[in-house]
Amino acid sequence: MEKKNTVIIGAGLVGSLLSIYLSKRGYKVKIYERRGDMRKQDMVAGRSINLALSDRGIKALEEVGLMDEIRKICIPMHGRFMHNADGSTAYQPYGKEGQFINSVSRGELNCRLMDLAEENGVQIKFNEKCNSIDWKENKIDFEKTDSPQSEKVKANLVFGSDGAYSAARLTHQLQHDRFQYSQYFIDFGYKELNIPAGENGSFMLEKNALHIWPRGNYMMIALPNIDGSFTCTLFFPFEGETSFASLDTKEKVTTFFENTFTDAVPLMPTLTEDFFNNPTSSLVTVKCFPWIREDKFALIGDAAHAMVPFFGQGMNCGFEDCRVLNSLIDKHDDNWSAILNEYQSLRKPDGDAICDLALNNFVEMRDKVADPKFLLQKKIEAAFSKKYPDKWIPAYAQVTFSPHIRYSEALVSGQKQEAIMQQIMALPDIENKWQDEAIEKMILNQLH
Amino acid sequence: MEKKNTVIIGAGLVGSLLSIYLSKRGYKVKIYERRGDMRKQDMVAGRSINLALSDRGIKALEEVGLMDEIRKICIPMHGRFMHNADGSTAYQPYGKEGQFINSVSRGELNCRLMDLAEENGVQIKFNEKCNSIDWKENKIDFEKTDSPQSEKVKANLVFGSDGAYSAARLTHQLQHDRFQYSQYFIDFGYKELNIPAGENGSFMLEKNALHIWPRGNYMMIALPNIDGSFTCTLFFPFEGETSFASLDTKEKVTTFFENTFTDAVPLMPTLTEDFFNNPTSSLVTVKCFPWIREDKFALIGDAAHAMVPFFGQGMNCGFEDCRVLNSLIDKHDDNWSAILNEYQSLRKPDGDAICDLALNNFVEMRDKVADPKFLLQKKIEAAFSKKYPDKWIPAYAQVTFSPHIRYSEALVSGQKQEAIMQQIMALPDIENKWQDEAIEKMILNQLH
Repeated sequence: MEKKNTVIIGAGLVGSLLSIYLSKRGYKVKIYERRGDMRKQDMVAGRSINLALSDRGIKALEEVGLMDEIRKICIPMHGRFMHNADGSTAYQPYGKEGQFINSVSRGELNCRLMDLAEENGVQIKFNEKCNSIDWKENKIDFEKTDSPQSEKVKANLVFGSDGAYSAARLTHQLQHDRFQYSQYFIDFGYKELNIPAGENGSFMLEKNALHIWPRGNYMMIALPNIDGSFTCTLFFPFEGETSFASLDTKEKVTTFFENTFTDAVPLMPTLTEDFFNNPTSSLVTVKCFPWIREDKFALIGDAAHAMVPFFGQGMNCGFEDCRVLNSLIDKHDDNWSAILNEYQSLRKPDGDAICDLALNNFVEMRDKVADPKFLLQKKIEAAFSKKYPDKWIPAYAQVTFSPHIRYSEALVSGQKQEAIMQQIMALPDIENKWQDEAIEKMILNQLH
Repeated sequence: MEKKNTVIIGAGLVGSLLSIYLSKRGYKVKIYERRGDMRKQDMVAGRSINLALSDRGIKALEEVGLMDEIRKICIPMHGRFMHNADGSTAYQPYGKEGQFINSVSRGELNCRLMDLAEENGVQIKFNEKCNSIDWKENKIDFEKTDSPQSEKVKANLVFGSDGAYSAARLTHQLQHDRFQYSQYFIDFGYKELNIPAGENGSFMLEKNALHIWPRGNYMMIALPNIDGSFTCTLFFPFEGETSFASLDTKEKVTTFFENTFTDAVPLMPTLTEDFFNNPTSSLVTVKCFPWIREDKFALIGDAAHAMVPFFGQGMNCGFEDCRVLNSLIDKHDDNWSAILNEYQSLRKPDGDAICDLALNNFVEMRDKVADPKFLLQKKIEAAFSKKYPDKWIPAYAQVTFSPHIRYSEALVSGQKQEAIMQQIMALPDIENKWQDEAIEKMILNQLH
């Protein structure tokens, strides 16, 4: 079939990767990006949760031959390092020995992907704002943001990879009858803060971990950067007694942090400046349907399924979208009606599932990880899983380290595991007898 | 406080009624309506479910002195008249003796409301499409649909009463960060069909009832018109074996109707013409938040809370919005910051509740009303309610005949009643012993 003339809206991580997949197949691809070329600009501070690149994302990057280069800017994180309110710390490995996720800078990764896209012949046009899409003609109206021009672009195949607030989705899909759509904001926002490197680029906290300060209703996290610094993110209520709204002076911020994140404060010399200079951003879950129109339009990545960041899967899921789509191009021999149909029917349930898993994980990260009983539960699961690796892969590991398991399968099997573990954890004196053979047998019985 | 200069977007039922409330208070009100003046046009056939005006709507119309006139174009419907698949019929009263809902033409009602609005000094401008709203300036950009003009209108107070697909909501509210929004379409559409009057305007079915042909997964209903005709509405799956998509020839439609709605077909001489000439429309539930912005903008009616039509409450709820808002103007003495805040906090939970009740009622109407056991349950509830009117008002009656009970209260108490009745209906031989004193005692005990 025909190699369609393709336009991608959005040169973010997913749009750039998608363009590489398509151009490697001989498709003529143009990307239109609303922002300027970030490779020519200073990075915008204060708006980037560090990304946690894990196996699904890695698999997709490996397929386009980019992973060896990206690995150089990754810092492995082998587990969660908890900083409890009472000053104690705890550590929970993410998976088995040798399994880890990777802290990587969104900006760096995006720049490398754009470079590779251009090396493969993709043309990226910047400062191009998608104003509207004429659905019948597949004609897109782009307005230059740096000059008073606009351009109507016609394409045979259009992808909307323009993120959680996708213009492709809002201007195009919302025009259609029976478009299922929901955008749901949690009552929490986030703000980026900073722990600079120590002398000679040394790391002031354990380097190879994701740090969490779980505080019940809210939390701070910190991810390592290759320059020795950590990017901290405070996830915090917008309103209420303890909230972004209530911390409205430098004194209040300082007092609050000293009481709440005591061990972190000495490492944060620019705390109050960062707090008031950096924006407070919101956190949204977007679900919609359909993602596609006939053989000529598809949403991909956050534009199709924006999620909160608490499972570290937003980028990984978007990259997996690209990888699955690519495999379907093979399977259906460039027949885009068949490709897009199967893409949607495979990925829609997986997108929904990881959106739900991500929302659930917020409670786990901000609250449960501070509970010794929860950590014991995870220890029991890990021990059982080690002994019976075919019978029990913990839900976190299914999502993070098992790209052959679909998100929708991980959601269901995670719910089943949780039901079993609730019974185990309710046993009297479980703290002391969790290694008994009887417990193992109970779990085994429940699995049948 | 100041009588604000007010613009209402949409001259539908709710916008027109709202303008009357406000103009009676001395507010200067202009309405901008996208369509032409329906009073000067032939009615558009095929797109209007007859409305069921009930006590909440009546109460609001009485307050502006319009109900005596509207009553003349109403036909009381005292209950549901079921036409079962096996040819049998059944009847279920809606409430107690003397309680009924009213079949009324949307077009007629809307015309009278617009007349009354103009009599009260409201200016209605037609063919004015709301293109965008400048939120900071409260300036609205209206484009004439019948000439190449546009106008920027500034107002101190703006209401969006422009229905389920509200431009005020989509162009204005969706611009804001943290706007909670969902639009959910059911997999069913509807199509208007017709049963004409008999000789001398006689009614060919029982006049004072809402007729239902419940068929499990789908249904047809018919409501009486004052000219002796009935407006039928088929609620039917879009896709699937038995669906709008599959009934694609006149022969298929005829065969299907003859097998499925056997007693109705002889009364529908224009069945196949109507089926293929009238549009198939979709059914959406819209929930959003916030409904208001400061002291200057509010959504009202379907624009704030669109619901499926299965509880007959869309208009009644919108009219109640107006009545509640009006009472708050008294309470807060034209202080619009306080008025809109309380309007939102009172009406948002009620809007959500009636949206949910309406979705649930689809299953009841298309499926359960054909089940003798369900009808028995309703009979038991009615009998108990008659004996203990203070202890048990059936959920349907709470919504339909009890405007002093909030929708959100009706939802909760309906769920409690349903749980009790599930236990009662599970008793062996309930068909024969439902009038036993023991049953009555069981219900009484559960109510404490």
